[in-house]
Formats: sequence, C-alpha cells, structure tokens
Amino acid sequence: IATDDDASLREFVDALMPARVAEFMEGLDAVESWRVLQVADPERRVEVFGYFEPEKQTALVHALVGAGDADAISGLVADLPADDRVDLLRDVDDHVVEELIPLLPPDDRRETLRLRGFPEGTAGSVMTTEMVCLPEHLSVAEALTEISKQAQEVETVYYTYVVDDDRRLLGLLSARQLVTHYLNPNQLISELMQRDVVTVLAMDDQEAVAEKVADYDFLAIPVVDENRRLLGIVTHDDIIDVFREEATEDALLAAGVAPLENGYLKTHWFTLAYSRGIWLGVMFFAALLTAYALLRYEEGFDKVWWLVLFIPLVISSGGNSGSQSATLVIRGLNDGEVRLEDWRRVLWRELAMGLFLGAGLAIVGYGSALLLTRQAPEPHLSPTSYEMVVVPVTILLVVVCGTLCGGALPLLFQKLGLDPALMSNPFVAGIIDIAGIVIYMTVATAMIAGM
Amino acid sequence: IATDDDASLREFVDALMPARVAEFMEGLDAVESWRVLQVADPERRVEVFGYFEPEKQTALVHALVGAGDADAISGLVADLPADDRVDLLRDVDDHVVEELIPLLPPDDRRETLRLRGFPEGTAGSVMTTEMVCLPEHLSVAEALTEISKQAQEVETVYYTYVVDDDRRLLGLLSARQLVTHYLNPNQLISELMQRDVVTVLAMDDQEAVAEKVADYDFLAIPVVDENRRLLGIVTHDDIIDVFREEATEDALLAAGVAPLENGYLKTHWFTLAYSRGIWLGVMFFAALLTAYALLRYEEGFDKVWWLVLFIPLVISSGGNSGSQSATLVIRGLNDGEVRLEDWRRVLWRELAMGLFLGAGLAIVGYGSALLLTRQAPEPHLSPTSYEMVVVPVTILLVVVCGTLCGGALPLLFQKLGLDPALMSNPFVAGIIDIAGIVIYMTVATAMIAGM
Repeated sequence: IATDDDASLREFVDALMPARVAEFMEGLDAVESWRVLQVADPERRVEVFGYFEPEKQTALVHALVGAGDADAISGLVADLPADDRVDLLRDVDDHVVEELIPLLPPDDRRETLRLRGFPEGTAGSVMTTEMVCLPEHLSVAEALTEISKQAQEVETVYYTYVVDDDRRLLGLLSARQLVTHYLNPNQLISELMQRDVVTVLAMDDQEAVAEKVADYDFLAIPVVDENRRLLGIVTHDDIIDVFREEATEDALLAAGVAPLENGYLKTHWFTLAYSRGIWLGVMFFAALLTAYALLRYEEGFDKVWWLVLFIPLVISSGGNSGSQSATLVIRGLNDGEVRLEDWRRVLWRELAMGLFLGAGLAIVGYGSALLLTRQAPEPHLSPTSYEMVVVPVTILLVVVCGTLCGGALPLLFQKLGLDPALMSNPFVAGIIDIAGIVIYMTVATAMIAGM
Repeated sequence: IATDDDASLREFVDALMPARVAEFMEGLDAVESWRVLQVADPERRVEVFGYFEPEKQTALVHALVGAGDADAISGLVADLPADDRVDLLRDVDDHVVEELIPLLPPDDRRETLRLRGFPEGTAGSVMTTEMVCLPEHLSVAEALTEISKQAQEVETVYYTYVVDDDRRLLGLLSARQLVTHYLNPNQLISELMQRDVVTVLAMDDQEAVAEKVADYDFLAIPVVDENRRLLGIVTHDDIIDVFREEATEDALLAAGVAPLENGYLKTHWFTLAYSRGIWLGVMFFAALLTAYALLRYEEGFDKVWWLVLFIPLVISSGGNSGSQSATLVIRGLNDGEVRLEDWRRVLWRELAMGLFLGAGLAIVGYGSALLLTRQAPEPHLSPTSYEMVVVPVTILLVVVCGTLCGGALPLLFQKLGLDPALMSNPFVAGIIDIAGIVIYMTVATAMIAGM
C-alpha cells in the first residue's frame, strides 16, 4: 500500500482467503482499508469487509459517509448478507443509517427495515433471509440447476428449503441428500426431503435457538411465523457467535460486571467504569450491612476478644461454598440439565453437600483456631477449648446456609422469570456475609458464658 | 414399546429425525432402548444411537457386553463416526474396550487405535477421519459422482479435500463451489479449489482450533501433520461442543469448582464433593491467614473498638473489584483480544479504574461510616470525623490493590504458561483479603493517635 502499487495489491487481495486478507488489514485505518478494498472486485470486497471487526466496519462506514461517499459504501452494504447488514446498521450512528437506507436497492431496503424490527437477542434479529427455497415438484437435476444459479446470492447451499406457494415450509433437503442422488437426476425432491423439520419462531430467544442447533448438530435452523411460513434461517456461524457472547456475558455477570458490547480493551474506559461501578455499588451496600450487623454485636467483641479473628474466615467459608452452589445450579439451568421441577433434589443435594463439606472445614478450622489462639498476645486470655467450639459449629452452619442459599436463589430467580445468572456469585456472597455474622454471634452468645 | 408392536415402533423410528427419536427414548433403560434400536435399519440405528447422551451410550454398551451380546453392539460401534467411537470407548470400562476392539472391522480398528493415541483436548482427539479426499485431476462431474458414492460413509460432504498421492493437502473445494459449477461439468476441480487452506496440527489445543474455526466461519478445519499430510477434519458440531464445554469449565473454575465430566445432577455425589472440597480447602487456608493477620493487630482492635465494624467491608471491596478485573482480563485473554504484550495497557487501565471506583466507594463509605458510628452503644466513644478518614483511605487503597492484582495475576499465569482461568475469583479474593487487612491496620496505625 505504501508503494501505491494497485496491481500487486489486487493480486494480494485475490490470492488469499477473505478472512486472511481482513486479518492482514487489521492495522490499516479506514482510508487505507478503503483503498485496498477498492482494487478488489465487488464480490471479494464484500467478503473481506464481512470479516472486519464490527468496530472497523462502523469506522469505515462513518468515514466514507462523512467524506460524502455514501454512494460507494451503500453498494457494499447492500451486498452484505441481510443479517450482517442489520448488525452493522445497528452499530452506526442514526443519521448515517438514514442516509444509507434510501440508497439500498428496494428489495434489500425492505428486508433491512423488516429485520430491524426484531428486538436484539431474538432469532429474528440473527437470521438471514438469503437461503435456497424451491417448490416440491422439482427433480434432483432441476434442483441442482436452480441451486447452482442461486449459489452466489444465498448464505448457505448446505440446506435447501422446500416450500409451497405461500412459502409454508414443507420439508428440508440437505446438500448431502442431493449429492447422494446426483446419479438419479430424475428423482423428485419431494420423495427425498425430510418432512419433520425442527423450526424456531422469530421471537424465540437466540440462546434457546443456539441450544437447539447444538443439540441436533444442525448447520442452520429455519425461522418461521405462526403459520409455519419460512421467514429466514439462522446459520452455524451465528450460533457459534451466540455461544461465545453468552459465555462471556455469564462470566462477567458471575463476577459482577454488567455485560459489555465489545471486549475489555476495546470498551471505552468510561463505559467499563459504569459496567463495573453499578454492581460494585450494589455489593458495597450489601457489605455495609455487615458493618451494621457487627455494630449490634459490638459488646460481645469487647468481652470476648478472639471472636474478631475469625470474622473473615466465617464469612468467606459461607460465601465460597455459596458461589460454588450458585454457579453449579446456574450452569445446570443454562444447559437444561437442571429443571425447576428438580428443586427438591437440588436442595437435598446441597444440604448433604453443605453438611459434608462444612464438617470437613469445621474440623480443620477447630484445630487451626486452637493453635492460633495459643499464640495470643496475653496468654492468660486464651479461650478454653470448649469456648473455641464456637468456631467449628459456626463454620458448619454457615457452609450449610451457603450451599442452601446458593442452590435455592437461582431456582427462585428462574421461577420468578428472571435470569438466574443475575443471582451471581457476589450477590449470593453478599447475602451470606450478613447471615454469617448473625450465625456467628448467635452461636457465640449461646455457648460462651458471660456474653 | 409396552404393546410389543414392532411394526408401529419401526414406523415411529423411521418417521422422525434421529435426534427426535433419541429425545423420545430418553426415559427408556438400556434393555428397552436396545429393543427399539433393533427394529430400526442399521443406518438409522447408528444415527439414533449417536444422539444418545454419553452416559446412555456407555450404559447400553455395558449392558449388551455384560449380556454376552458384544457382537451385536460391535457392529453399531463400528458404524459410528470415528471421533464419536473414540469418545465412547474412552468412557466405557477397559475390559469392555478390550472385548470390543478385536470385533471391529480391521480398518475401523486401526483408526480407533490411532485416534486413541491423541491426548484428550487436542485437535487429534476430536477430529474425524471420514471426509471426502479426491485427486486434483478430476472434473466437476467426476468429483460429484465420486462424492455421491462416498456420501454415506463420510461425516460431511460440505468440504472436499484435494490431496496428492502422499495425501498431502493441495486444496479445498466447498459444496457451494461444486454446485455453482454444476452446469460446467467438465471444469477441472484443480482450477476451482481454494489453495490457501487454513489448517491445524493434530496436537493443537482444541480451544485454539475452535477459535480459529469461529473466526473464519468454517464448517470444518483440516488437521494435518508436519508434512501437511491430511489426517482428518474437525467439524462444526465438535466445535460447538468445545465452546460449550469450555464455557462451563471456565464458569466452574471462576467459582472454585474443579471441572466436571458431566452435569450437576448427573455427577456422582462424591465426585462433586471432591471437585468442590479441594478448592474450598485451598480457599479456607487463605482465609485462615486472615485470622493470623488479625491476631497481629489484636491490640489495635482492643484500643479502637470501631475498627472491627469495617473489616468485612474493606475485605469485600477489594475482593469484588479484584474478581471483576480478573474476570475481564481472563475473558480478554481467552477471546484473544488481550495479549501478553498489552500488559502495560492493562495495568494502566486497572490503576485508573481502581482510583476512580475506589474514590467513589470511599466517598460513600465515609458518609455511611460517619452515620453508623454515631449510633455507637456508648456515644462518648464515637470516633472523631478525622479518625474515621481511615475508612475511605483504606477503601481507596484496597480497591486499587484489588484491580491491580486482579489484572496482573492472570497475565502472570499466562506468562508462566499456566491457564489464566486458574487465577480464578476466589483465589484472587483470598490474596486480596489478606492484603486488605494489612492495609487497613497500617492506615489505622498511621492515622489514629494512641494506636
């Protein structure tokens, strides 16, 4: 690019796979990228553009529209697969969208406006409308001829959808079935097609759609309306994106970070501060409640000095076992392995787990606590072995409380129709922190004379 | 099945898609499932079996081999795609494997033994060896004929691999390219094929392979040896499984649960207790260290009673901001967005973030602390507003310490060649807990007269 050598640039763009070209162009700015894209033929241009990062696509569109070159970019935008086009237009500024949409060919324009109507996160918003649809009376040879004509425009040739005159879905024909019958060209596709087609509705949640595709090992799944009319398909590459997005979102939620649109380094500093700040604030208020709880028991700490030592231990035992339980149940609910009806089983499991793990930690804790308080600054103040039993009893109860809360709260959230992932680790931990202090001081008051 | 009506059973098995049949059979035990499978024709039988849950497959194999029916099941096992066969044999007991392997046809036996040689988690262990390989001198029509003959045996017809006599990979032909040229049957495939093929090595990590497939939107990726000889392919359905597995594994690690083979309810109670117990134990010892730290400062608490109130608040502020940072950096490293070379940028970001968020929490904390200590049981003991500045100063420092540790530790783990996800939230929180107490008491000693 530095040498302005268009011929060798074109050679480079044509020789490599589009995804590779996009990778090599990562370092270029919008103007340079556009220069490279311009030397490529239109078909390749749109492929390479499709592999750019969303931010780069947006920047390029902004730069060109800003430079009065909206015409040039509208051709590129029109050639994008419909679902990618809608994603792109969601990211660019509203006035740019208003400038671009009228420049699209009528068909693409109508499609874009319709797809923009589906809320983000639904099957409708990630589907593409460019697939092969054929009537059922064709033979294998006719179908292959038809597909070969449409192959350039559609997003996938791996599935062909057989529809009636009203676009109602009748069946599905895989490329494998077609190719297998390549040597019987006169067979009718209606005899070959699979009639029991699994579909989703346009308003279905994209996560549920992804699970379905993964469970059935599909390459794509058709999206239909209530009358089983074919609206579009969701393809395997979008499914993988959904899984990656959801994994990141769940991980961030579990750590108390509101979902981010982009990655860590790409998110604007202030957006990141906001995503973290709101949750950190919520958790801070939960922690403030522990201070109030401790204030109530202030006198007890005055009289029995060594109780202070084990506050963090007691709190973290409950919090840690609680987040383990919450995470296991949330993952189980996500994967569909745990259902609401299983709540008795989950709670029994968590009760048993809490008793078992709590007993283990209690034994270790008792031994360590005895050793620790022997090193007291004023040895005559050392607690008796009996008084120290407060520590293991508290640990046992706090761990059981942790596993039960951690197991129950995500189920409760699911029951209430909320995302169980909201009942994330720091939230569960905050609740258990306060319970831990109350349990600790109640046990101490009951067991230690003079409190 | 209750009515022993084979004809209608067969109708049911034949009418629905294999994945659906497997779903309906979820409730059946091994013997009943085998009865249903037996009425189906062998091809359909193996498809339905392929959609069973791994535990059900294993149970069925065990039941049949146990009943002396190893011959019957070996046919089924032989018909499975090579990668699924290896997965299954990994799950069943060793003596069953020894009984089954000799019963496999020689080709399948050799394949199975070879694939079993690749360690779990590598590209080699998830690849299949059943793909279409053609020499480069064929025409489109010859290629289609060849593919139509092989279509039943291979796992995917969507990519055809063009190889030389030594099985060295020359190029890749997609079904789309073939179908597009259906009307030019005499064109040579060597003129159509893509020569710049992205490949992976058999020993590459499956997570890296999955990222590559997702980045390039591939349906499958070829696995080659050092001489670029084609060994197999990893297909899109295995890639989705890898993403799902990794997401669950990361979520569990982040909550301090060792990875599980199966889901929450399916895992044996004792295995689950072990997976949780080891991490809970590690975190418990970290928490015990806080007790030692507090013991060192015992005298301080005796003299300045209200310091106790804010121990959980200080600890949790650091822990929460630390796990936020750790999770963001771990996700960034996983997605390839953050690289080791970015460490300066990450640390600057986290320093700024810590100062900003810490200052916010400090202001709220100072106000709340003033309010709180006004309600002291003996009002004449209330701390002065100046003394209370200990709380916000500590919060600020602890939050900065949290964000810096949370950002740095995953990078350090990555640098040391360890999985950054091991530097999970409870681990980071444990380290910051201790740092929090030390910072708290150091600030208090410096600022409060008479400590």
